[in-house]
Amino acid sequence: MLATLIHGPRDIRATEVADPRVEKPTDAVVRVVASCICGSDLWPYRGVQETKKTHPIGHEFVGVVEEVGDEVRDLRVGQFVIAPFVVSDGTCVNCRNGVQTSCLHGASWGADDQDGLAVPGGQSARIRVPWADGTLVGTDEMPPDALIPSLLTLSDVMSTGHHAAVSAGVGPGRTVAVVGDGAVGLCGVLAAKRLGAERVVLFSRHPDRQALGREFGADTVLEERGDAGVEAVHALFDGVGPDCVLECVGTKESMDQALRSVRPGGHVGYVGVPSGGAELPIRLMFGGNINVAGGVAPARAYIPELLPDVLSGAIDPGRVFDLTLPLAEVADGYTAMDERRAIKVLLQP
Amino acid sequence: MLATLIHGPRDIRATEVADPRVEKPTDAVVRVVASCICGSDLWPYRGVQETKKTHPIGHEFVGVVEEVGDEVRDLRVGQFVIAPFVVSDGTCVNCRNGVQTSCLHGASWGADDQDGLAVPGGQSARIRVPWADGTLVGTDEMPPDALIPSLLTLSDVMSTGHHAAVSAGVGPGRTVAVVGDGAVGLCGVLAAKRLGAERVVLFSRHPDRQALGREFGADTVLEERGDAGVEAVHALFDGVGPDCVLECVGTKESMDQALRSVRPGGHVGYVGVPSGGAELPIRLMFGGNINVAGGVAPARAYIPELLPDVLSGAIDPGRVFDLTLPLAEVADGYTAMDERRAIKVLLQP
Repeated sequence: MLATLIHGPRDIRATEVADPRVEKPTDAVVRVVASCICGSDLWPYRGVQETKKTHPIGHEFVGVVEEVGDEVRDLRVGQFVIAPFVVSDGTCVNCRNGVQTSCLHGASWGADDQDGLAVPGGQSARIRVPWADGTLVGTDEMPPDALIPSLLTLSDVMSTGHHAAVSAGVGPGRTVAVVGDGAVGLCGVLAAKRLGAERVVLFSRHPDRQALGREFGADTVLEERGDAGVEAVHALFDGVGPDCVLECVGTKESMDQALRSVRPGGHVGYVGVPSGGAELPIRLMFGGNINVAGGVAPARAYIPELLPDVLSGAIDPGRVFDLTLPLAEVADGYTAMDERRAIKVLLQP
Repeated sequence: MLATLIHGPRDIRATEVADPRVEKPTDAVVRVVASCICGSDLWPYRGVQETKKTHPIGHEFVGVVEEVGDEVRDLRVGQFVIAPFVVSDGTCVNCRNGVQTSCLHGASWGADDQDGLAVPGGQSARIRVPWADGTLVGTDEMPPDALIPSLLTLSDVMSTGHHAAVSAGVGPGRTVAVVGDGAVGLCGVLAAKRLGAERVVLFSRHPDRQALGREFGADTVLEERGDAGVEAVHALFDGVGPDCVLECVGTKESMDQALRSVRPGGHVGYVGVPSGGAELPIRLMFGGNINVAGGVAPARAYIPELLPDVLSGAIDPGRVFDLTLPLAEVADGYTAMDERRAIKVLLQP
C-alpha cells in the first residue's frame, strides 16, 4: 500500500510499504477514505523542525474499519471513523479529564508507541490504530461522500479552531477577533459563530481567505497588522478591543497581535503551535488581566460535540480544502501549501 | 497630619504633611481608620524597584468619609468606606467590564492622577480620594472595631487571593494547590474554600503560616519545593496534579512550581506581581493545555461580593495581620515584614 514518508526537508514521497495489521488486541486497522496535509506538517517539510530519520507523516484521516483486535468493543468492521490527531487510550486520568492529548499511554501518528511499535502516519492508504476504542470516533451510518471533507476537518483543524474559541471563552454576546487566516483560523471563525459570538473580526490579507472567512461568519475583515492592526481592532470595540481573541498561528508576531488586541480582562485562546521566541510577556498580561488559555486541541473530546452539526450540514468546515490530490501526488500537495497556492490539501488514496 | 513617604531603599518614614482637601467635585476626603503594608511595598523598600523621587506610599486603607465634593452621589460624610488598591472612575468601559485596575482615568495611590494632582498614599492619616464614587465601597453601618482588620484585607490581599481562585476556575469539587504562604496565598486558601474547593494543598515551610493556612481551610501542607514539590503534589492528585493552582508570589521559581504542579488541562490563577525573568514558557503550557489567568486583581469588582461574608463573620481574613503598630512607627513595620518577623502589618493612625 502507499504511505507518505518524510526523508528530510522538501523530500516527502508516497512510497509502497507493507500493509499494516492488528498487532495488539486493542488495535484496529482502518482503510483511509481521505487524509490531508496540516500547516504543522510544513515545519519538517521546510526544515524548521529537524527530521532525524525517515518516518511516516500525517495525522488527520477518516476511513472505514477493516479489522479489529479482540479487545475492541466500541467499533465494528465496516464502520466509518474519524481519527483525532493523536492516539489516546480513553481510560487514563487525563483522558477522563478530557485532555486526551496528554494521554498517559498515548502516541503520535508516524512515530513509535510506548511499546516501541511503529504507528503509521495519517497520509497512508491503511493505518493500524492503537487504542482503537479510545482514539477513534465512529458514526452510526456511512456518511455521504459530500460530507467527507467536513468530517475530515474534525481530525484537527475544526476541532482546533473550536478549541481556540472555547479556550477564549467565546459565547453568546461575546466579541471576537481571529489572528490567522489559515485553515485553523477560518475554522475558528466558524466555531466562534457557532458558539454564539456577537461579532467576529478576522485579520486577513488574502482575498480568497477573506472571502471564505466572511462565508464562515466574519462580520469584518481587517488587513492591518502590528500597531495598525491593534489600533484598528481597538477602534471597532469601544477603543479597548474585543472580549476574546483566537491566536491561530503560533509565531511571536501573531501572539503579540493577539495579546495587544484583546481588551483588558479579556481572553486569548491560542492553538498555533508555538514557534521560536514565543515566550509570553507576563508583565503585559498581568497589568491588563489578559488571560491565556488553549494549547494542543483535545480533538477527541470535541468530535462528539461537533459531529452532529457536520452531519446535519449546520457547519461546513470542509470548505477549507481548496485542492484535492491523489495520495500518490502528495509531494505536489506539500508544494502547493508551502507556496500558499492552497489553504489545505485533501488526499484521496 | 502624618503620611508615610519613601525616600529611597530602606528609607521610609512617617512625616508631617499638609492635610488633604477636596480638589475636584468628584473627590472625597477620608480619615483613615486602618492601613497596612503590602508585600509589594517591600520592592521599593528593598531597592528591587527604583524610587526616583520621594513619594507617599501605601495602597490599602479603610476609613470614614470626612468631606465630599459636589458631584459625589453614592457616599455621605460619616460613612465607613473600603478603598481598593487603585483609583477608578467606575464609568469607563474597562470599569463597566469589571476591570477597574485598567480604568481609562485611573490613578495609583501615592502618585499623580491624570490631571497632575498628587494622590496621597494609603499609609497616611487622611487621604484625598479621586473618583470617590467609582473608587470607594461604603458600608451601610459603622462596623465594629473587631471587623476592621478583615475589612482592611478587602483593599488588597483578600480580593487578590479571591482573584487568584476565580482566575484558576476554583469551584465546587475542584482540587487546588496554593503556591505562596504570604498574606495573599493564605487568603487564596480561604477564597478557594469559600468557593467550594474539594481539597486545598498549601506549599509552606513556615510553621506559623502553615498553622494559619490550616485554619483557613488547607487540607494538606507540603514543605517540598521544586522537583520534589511537583512530585509530592502530583502524588496527591491521581499522579497528575490538581485542577487549579494559585500562584501568589510572582517569581520565576514560583510560576514554574505552579505550571508544573497543575494537571494537564488545568488552570493557574496568578496574582503575584511578576518579578524579573518570569516570562511564561509557552511550549510547556501548549503541550499540557495549561491555562494561565489572573493579573492585578480588580478589588473594586470583588469587594461587594466579599463584604457580606466579612460582615457576617463567615470569613475572617484579617487574621493575616500579626503585628499592629501606630502609623508613626511605620518604619518598624517595614523592617518586621522585610525580616519575615511579620506576615502583614496593620497601621493605626
